[in-house]
Amino acid sequence: MLAEFSIIPIGIGESMGDQIAKVVKIVDESGLPYKANPMGTVVEGNWDDVMPIIKKCHQEVIKSSPRVITSVSIDDRPGKPNRIVEKIRSVEKRLGKEVKK
Amino acid sequence: MLAEFSIIPIGIGESMGDQIAKVVKIVDESGLPYKANPMGTVVEGNWDDVMPIIKKCHQEVIKSSPRVITSVSIDDRPGKPNRIVEKIRSVEKRLGKEVKK
Amino acid sequence: MLAEFSIIPIGIGESMGDQIAKVVKIVDESGLPYKANPMGTVVEGNWDDVMPIIKKCHQEVIKSSPRVITSVSIDDRPGKPNRIVEKIRSVEKRLGKEVKK
Amino acid sequence: MLAEFSIIPIGIGESMGDQIAKVVKIVDESGLPYKANPMGTVVEGNWDDVMPIIKKCHQEVIKSSPRVITSVSIDDRPGKPNRIVEKIRSVEKRLGKEVKK
Repeated sequence: MLAEFSIIPIGIGESMGDQIAKVVKIVDESGLPYKANPMGTVVEGNWDDVMPIIKKCHQEVIKSSPRVITSVSIDDRPGKPNRIVEKIRSVEKRLGKEVKK
Repeated sequence: MLAEFSIIPIGIGESMGDQIAKVVKIVDESGLPYKANPMGTVVEGNWDDVMPIIKKCHQEVIKSSPRVITSVSIDDRPGKPNRIVEKIRSVEKRLGKEVKK
Repeated sequence: MLAEFSIIPIGIGESMGDQIAKVVKIVDESGLPYKANPMGTVVEGNWDDVMPIIKKCHQEVIKSSPRVITSVSIDDRPGKPNRIVEKIRSVEKRLGKEVKK
Repeated sequence: MLAEFSIIPIGIGESMGDQIAKVVKIVDESGLPYKANPMGTVVEGNWDDVMPIIKKCHQEVIKSSPRVITSVSIDDRPGKPNRIVEKIRSVEKRLGKEVKK
């Protein structure tokens, strides 16, 4: 499955770059395929691979914030591998051109 | 923490009432505090209480659908109990009137 | 269409009850059918009824916050009226019992 | 503001590549800065630039689907330009390395 998630620390001011960097570092070191974008991070794997990583990120951010809002969107289509690359590629094939990413 | 989730079966037609009923039944039988609304279900509990229920719901729906899109929003504010009732109550106190719910 | 939205002020501390109260007040006074829940507010109407209300709420909150994160989920199924009541009712009919809401 | 959105056609089968291609084409031709990712598309602009594009995409997809579920997440931080590039760049600066994107 693909899962995009974002973690928003509340109560530490308007800047959250330090917390987002910690989250991306955890994902990068997890070994899961991932892609960071300006609004969240997409990872690919089974529920039991992906959810513990998101939990770890959430718990890392809540160490330094009194409140944390975490969003997760899952797109699960069993039997389709490498969708983290193939979904955009299939759009580009249909459009006959590269898209911005 | 509070978690709102929705589970969307894809590839079984435009109606998903049977699947939503199965999801609400699982939540109702879980014993977790919950509130169903027209766009999702809010549950309250720790990460390790809430996430296995959402996983169970997701897996129930994927039995009968080739693709499932699940969204989860978590609001985690440690030390604040019974927020499933108190959040709306505090809004009503501020407004000096009941709101529709 | 049904639209659930939530508006999160960032940079004003961990409590956001005052801002949520302002949002629910705007929705309540809009005349649109709505239901507030612990994680957001569901409204029903056309795109051009609903989106200006959400914009008004977002702009109200950004007056007093340096950063605002707003989420909107839309479920649009033309030709089905009063879904803000009927979606849950159809779940209850299937389950043969009332659910918590 | 940054806005990430995704549009899910319901009732046309499990594949939605044709619809996603139409959405990305509309965004690409709009002239707004954007980045497509495997779970949605991020655009940058004012509310009144961004929302009509998302409405146009939603309406395009609903032409060919009996039901459409659209999600929008907005991160609005006035006075910070070019965040579609700068948010990830600031994470990379903190980590001292490039991240996958």
